[in-house]
Order: sequence, then C-alpha cells, then structure tokens
Amino acid sequence: MSQSTYTVSGMTCGHCIAAVTEEISEIDNDTEVAVDLPTGAVTSTKPIDDADVRAAVEEAGYRLAA
Amino acid sequence: MSQSTYTVSGMTCGHCIAAVTEEISEIDNDTEVAVDLPTGAVTSTKPIDDADVRAAVEEAGYRLAA
Repeated sequence: MSQSTYTVSGMTCGHCIAAVTEEISEIDNDTEVAVDLPTGAVTSTKPIDDADVRAAVEEAGYRLAA
Repeated sequence: MSQSTYTVSGMTCGHCIAAVTEEISEIDNDTEVAVDLPTGAVTSTKPIDDADVRAAVEEAGYRLAA
C-alpha cells in the first residue's frame, strides 16, 4: 500500500490542521490524512491526485510548499 | 461608553481569532469583539464580566494572559 506525502506551509494551530485534513479527506473518503504541524508534512494513506491536493490545500487557505 | 480589554495567549491564526471572538460574543450578543493577533489584545465594546470572559477564552482553547 502506497501513500502520498506533501508539505503544506502556513499551518499554525489545531484549527489549521483540521481545515487541511477536512479538505483533503473530501477528495477520497477512504483515505486517512495525517498532519505534522512543526514540519507541515501531510500524509495520505492512499495516493491522491496532486492537482486535487493542491486545490484542497488552497481551498483550506494554505499553500503547498513545493 | 466603556469597553473591556483582555490579553489572550496562544492565538496564532485567523481560526483562533474566530474561535475566541465567537465564544466571547456569546456572553452578550450586543457586544462587538475585536482581536489583535500579534499582541493578543481582545477588546469588547461593552464591559463584560471577567469570569465570563475567562470561561469563554478557555472554552475556545486559550488562556487569559493575566
């Protein structure tokens, strides 16, 4: 089973984690999303489309770092 | 017209501002609440009970600095 990891910049608190997690989870209800706040690392247990992730992160009000 | 100012610690983003503003606004629907994120200064346009403010801030997940 593969997974996808992205780096999201601008998250500062638990609300930020919740906002990003919620938006990415909506791409695929079967994936589990984990966020590491200090590094901005966001991991999805299922591979998801990069463009969809970028759109979800921006919808939440943040940006992909790369 | 008097107002009340408090200092709240731990707020880091717009979600934090929204959470604190919402909880304090529920004390008195007639008061307007303003938050300055860098300083943590929270101002209410109407005087409100200190204990109620403390409870609202803690309900939102933050602390009064003094």
